Amino acid sequence: MGVVVDGCPPRLAISVSEIQRDLDRRRPGQSHLTTPRDEQDHIEIISGLFEGLTIGSPIAMWVGNKDARPEAYEELRNLYRPSHADYTTEAKYGIRNWQGGGRSSARETIGRVAAGAIARKLLFELSGIEVCAWVSVVGTIASQVDRETVQFGEIEATPTRCPDSMAAKKMEDSIEMARKKGDSLGGIIECVARNVPPGLGEPVFDKLDADLAKAMLSLPAAKGFEVGSGFSGTRLHGSEHNDPFVRDEAGVVRTKTNRSGGIQGGISNGELIVSRVAFKPTATISVSQDTVDSEGKSIVLEARGRHDPCVLPRAVPMVEAMMCLVLADHLLRQASTDVLPPISRRS
Amino acid sequence: MGVVVDGCPPRLAISVSEIQRDLDRRRPGQSHLTTPRDEQDHIEIISGLFEGLTIGSPIAMWVGNKDARPEAYEELRNLYRPSHADYTTEAKYGIRNWQGGGRSSARETIGRVAAGAIARKLLFELSGIEVCAWVSVVGTIASQVDRETVQFGEIEATPTRCPDSMAAKKMEDSIEMARKKGDSLGGIIECVARNVPPGLGEPVFDKLDADLAKAMLSLPAAKGFEVGSGFSGTRLHGSEHNDPFVRDEAGVVRTKTNRSGGIQGGISNGELIVSRVAFKPTATISVSQDTVDSEGKSIVLEARGRHDPCVLPRAVPMVEAMMCLVLADHLLRQASTDVLPPISRRS
Amino acid sequence: MGVVVDGCPPRLAISVSEIQRDLDRRRPGQSHLTTPRDEQDHIEIISGLFEGLTIGSPIAMWVGNKDARPEAYEELRNLYRPSHADYTTEAKYGIRNWQGGGRSSARETIGRVAAGAIARKLLFELSGIEVCAWVSVVGTIASQVDRETVQFGEIEATPTRCPDSMAAKKMEDSIEMARKKGDSLGGIIECVARNVPPGLGEPVFDKLDADLAKAMLSLPAAKGFEVGSGFSGTRLHGSEHNDPFVRDEAGVVRTKTNRSGGIQGGISNGELIVSRVAFKPTATISVSQDTVDSEGKSIVLEARGRHDPCVLPRAVPMVEAMMCLVLADHLLRQASTDVLPPISRRS
Amino acid sequence: MGVVVDGCPPRLAISVSEIQRDLDRRRPGQSHLTTPRDEQDHIEIISGLFEGLTIGSPIAMWVGNKDARPEAYEELRNLYRPSHADYTTEAKYGIRNWQGGGRSSARETIGRVAAGAIARKLLFELSGIEVCAWVSVVGTIASQVDRETVQFGEIEATPTRCPDSMAAKKMEDSIEMARKKGDSLGGIIECVARNVPPGLGEPVFDKLDADLAKAMLSLPAAKGFEVGSGFSGTRLHGSEHNDPFVRDEAGVVRTKTNRSGGIQGGISNGELIVSRVAFKPTATISVSQDTVDSEGKSIVLEARGRHDPCVLPRAVPMVEAMMCLVLADHLLRQASTDVLPPISRRS
Repeated sequence: MGVVVDGCPPRLAISVSEIQRDLDRRRPGQSHLTTPRDEQDHIEIISGLFEGLTIGSPIAMWVGNKDARPEAYEELRNLYRPSHADYTTEAKYGIRNWQGGGRSSARETIGRVAAGAIARKLLFELSGIEVCAWVSVVGTIASQVDRETVQFGEIEATPTRCPDSMAAKKMEDSIEMARKKGDSLGGIIECVARNVPPGLGEPVFDKLDADLAKAMLSLPAAKGFEVGSGFSGTRLHGSEHNDPFVRDEAGVVRTKTNRSGGIQGGISNGELIVSRVAFKPTATISVSQDTVDSEGKSIVLEARGRHDPCVLPRAVPMVEAMMCLVLADHLLRQASTDVLPPISRRS
Repeated sequence: MGVVVDGCPPRLAISVSEIQRDLDRRRPGQSHLTTPRDEQDHIEIISGLFEGLTIGSPIAMWVGNKDARPEAYEELRNLYRPSHADYTTEAKYGIRNWQGGGRSSARETIGRVAAGAIARKLLFELSGIEVCAWVSVVGTIASQVDRETVQFGEIEATPTRCPDSMAAKKMEDSIEMARKKGDSLGGIIECVARNVPPGLGEPVFDKLDADLAKAMLSLPAAKGFEVGSGFSGTRLHGSEHNDPFVRDEAGVVRTKTNRSGGIQGGISNGELIVSRVAFKPTATISVSQDTVDSEGKSIVLEARGRHDPCVLPRAVPMVEAMMCLVLADHLLRQASTDVLPPISRRS
Repeated sequence: MGVVVDGCPPRLAISVSEIQRDLDRRRPGQSHLTTPRDEQDHIEIISGLFEGLTIGSPIAMWVGNKDARPEAYEELRNLYRPSHADYTTEAKYGIRNWQGGGRSSARETIGRVAAGAIARKLLFELSGIEVCAWVSVVGTIASQVDRETVQFGEIEATPTRCPDSMAAKKMEDSIEMARKKGDSLGGIIECVARNVPPGLGEPVFDKLDADLAKAMLSLPAAKGFEVGSGFSGTRLHGSEHNDPFVRDEAGVVRTKTNRSGGIQGGISNGELIVSRVAFKPTATISVSQDTVDSEGKSIVLEARGRHDPCVLPRAVPMVEAMMCLVLADHLLRQASTDVLPPISRRS
Repeated sequence: MGVVVDGCPPRLAISVSEIQRDLDRRRPGQSHLTTPRDEQDHIEIISGLFEGLTIGSPIAMWVGNKDARPEAYEELRNLYRPSHADYTTEAKYGIRNWQGGGRSSARETIGRVAAGAIARKLLFELSGIEVCAWVSVVGTIASQVDRETVQFGEIEATPTRCPDSMAAKKMEDSIEMARKKGDSLGGIIECVARNVPPGLGEPVFDKLDADLAKAMLSLPAAKGFEVGSGFSGTRLHGSEHNDPFVRDEAGVVRTKTNRSGGIQGGISNGELIVSRVAFKPTATISVSQDTVDSEGKSIVLEARGRHDPCVLPRAVPMVEAMMCLVLADHLLRQASTDVLPPISRRS
């Protein structure tokens, strides 16, 4: 698995360990809740750094695959696994490498997480921006989390990455039960960004929330996205939903509530960026399923592959990575918008 | 308001009336449920056609603004309207044209709808694709609609564009009530596409559902997007959620259920494309609101502008337009993927 | 003719007259050397400005066509004019609007010149950059110009836009003679940019000279491009061609010679940017020519259209416009490269 | 050195040896005329192929660097080599990896040549297109070559890659002499493409010749580009320069002459594509040169690095690669233009 990050500004200090930290949160085998595949996913930086600093060249990174077992896919050679991309890939390209999931394998998210770690560092260096996600819902179990104050340590305290410890326990039990049945669970991840300056996002098509929506829906198994009040906000009246502007003690314009989720008219307003992503239950299960083969013949699939009963805990760093990448892109785009002096400073 | 459509293939027959039909569904003043602003929004095609056919050049179109009243914005000059883009636009650009909403005005969707009408024609000519959206929810009022069979005529039969006539009546009453109070309502629009061939969508980043998510979230007032089972699908187990493959009488590979919403691994699978978009209640209301001006001074805003109590009925053609544009882009992208003969036809 | 400029930073002061100045240098009928078509080409700014300043929105501009005579093209309806784009346009699109040259008409350069005028203003405001071009060669008549010192006034002093007055006179006679014969002439335009800061241009593909080459070759009738020593530099040895580095009195690193033309490794080095563009003789002539019609039948074309015997004088502002646009793009790209503090300023 | 090729259609048969063939023509040490660096440059295909066929995924390729000697650059650490990118890279990024040329090293062209080999195969499979380049001029020694008929074997017959054997001998002597003096030579490469169908190239900005110009000027040491009659065509009258259309025996519309170089209005016309690229003499020489260091101190550079006295013979496959890549891009773009049936086939 390789990834190339282009457009990272020069002179950013970045170390392998900063990138590895997020990869370790993504990798399989990190807890009893995840697939037992032993993938250490050690990242190697191939280009783009010199003496610990970025130099403006593309940053190529590489993770070797220690535990690949292409032969494990032999029996799936002519099968279309339900709700996987086997059938659609073949429909699209007229050819398919059946020895692994190819680009529809969740292993491709290694690249996103590694790139996201660089973006995260850049965001913090440039604007003190912090991005943080957690598991909000697993199946039917919801949690209560104070999104304004929740900290990284609380999230990482449990294998579910849900900072509400009571809900986390129930989620854990629920995931264990699904695993025993060979079944799987979905859920919702919430992701916030703090200290995002007002002004990020481009009107009409490249709105900040539009780019976030695309980034999140491009993740494997993602089926929905919402920002701020999202779907539940549709039930309110405008008079309840609008966020009144106020001036805080420092004289900064703020909003009293944040149903906008930190984005108004597609542009950040300085408040907490709030988003949620829905993930379907993992398609790979060990329960037997009906399907057809590439000749169209009906058969029963008895999946025995290594899989996660619930992808949510490992998806937390993926969601964070996409948030970081989108924010970094917009922060860099904004630099070319800001080149002329403010009107107030003109004579 | 102008729009330029680039990349439309040559030799497509397109008439002004085909474009005007969708603009008439978008324009204000079409029913008692919409803003009384009298905007006829007559479209003029300036370039790109010759004798009724596209010629491969950019198609420029133009709609004059008959009923513009910049002076109506005079009192909003130094105000930040709650949950509008006044503040964020100024934060981003350091300058703002206060005489209208600029690019954050919903009038910009004229361009989307006009462009979408061309995309719609192209989709139908190339693959018989049909795109159709309707109002699914207004506030707390949900409808029951058979998405496989619902027809354009049923949707257009009521001013709410909800094809469930009982729900439509309740929605209408609810919108009327909001209007009387000077308040507004949000809701959910559902959009489907029929006859989409399998194979559309590009792995990893430009997945079909990712591009739809971006397109939909770029619409004014959109706060959420979901495809297929979406957020509610997160409550199911994998064994319940997976769509088993079957072969239909014609020998075509189909899925028995469609929780995937016609997209698997970011690529269309030949089933009905199913998506939903959440719209917040309109930010412009006549109820008095607290806000600040550009000096940060607290004031009370008594909006008297012309506005829609519920944007949903007029947003139906906007959602359809975005679906058409995304599908057309992917259909054209796929043409360059399909250039080599199928493997089966090789010796 | 319309043009949309996207990406111009907000808060740039720009007036219609600044744009019109360059359009007047481009328009037909400005001297006895150009086509007598009376096109005033008055530009109208439709969007993107407010009270004389850009606001970050796309800047749409419009020039009406006062003297269009589509009927003049009637006789060319089924003809392929030699060395025009009639045949290739039809080959590409399978359809052609024969009532004018469409996008291959030199009238499209109005948009470039108008956009270039905005870029020119931005370059000057941001970095004091000045762009200046002149006619260097017409047919076989070459000029002697000091590119380091030549000024706008000297260039505009003659209708040929050649600042070497002796050569200018010969060029003028030569163009007059071509006109009388119904024939046409080509030539070379030289274009320089002063005060370009070192560091513009992106390694590998988007090198500054590569982008200039593309921009210039996209101009109608352009057949060649060179930067610095160009084709003639290929005759030198490395020891003669290399530009030794020196330090000037102000301590700035400079080059003693400038065979690089201000660009090394695709990146500006702070010296004068030097480029030349070759234009073929105008394809539209009044001498009778052999050609075929769309049925493939041989016929003789007796062109009587209004045309320039030599496009060079009017092409000067076009070449300047392309230089300005490329430099502005790279200046804005560089803003996102410059976001982190210099290494020297770190502790 | 790695390269990623995205957008290659699926089901193209491609072998390592087809790619290696062009890399062997590019690699150092292939004859006594090139740098003695022993770089075998064995290519490895990492992704994008399955059982010898492309699968639509990005094709990642890799060439290890067997003979890297970063310590050889130690003495250049604080130096700016004349007419290299050392100074401009530092000006742009504020940091520089001095242990090698980085992205301004000619080694980056490995990626271009490998990618070009895939494009070459695609062009041939899709349209029988053949691309072929040769050394036309070295220093002051020009050759006579029939560009319509010259074959690959004639070009590869001499180490200079000039198919005019008499000129080739003189070039060889001339390069040998330059090597002995520690000096270098420049020259001109001519490149043609056969069987290019009419219709490739996009009006206004992405003209076929504009994209070729950019591609060629992005090559290291390139200083000029021309298409068809190029700079010398500027000396002709329009009546001499225009290419009359004729119909050949097969009824196909052709041009009698080809001063257009196979491109009219930026679109291919079915004739031979003809282009030339000027390369400056190699900047790396062993003659002592004046320069400054990063402190601005004057010093004398005694280069002893391994270098080519003349880059031209090795640049032939680079120029071909860029031609192939540009043509392949345009051939694939055209696929989405061709989706609707021809007008003649409509009722």
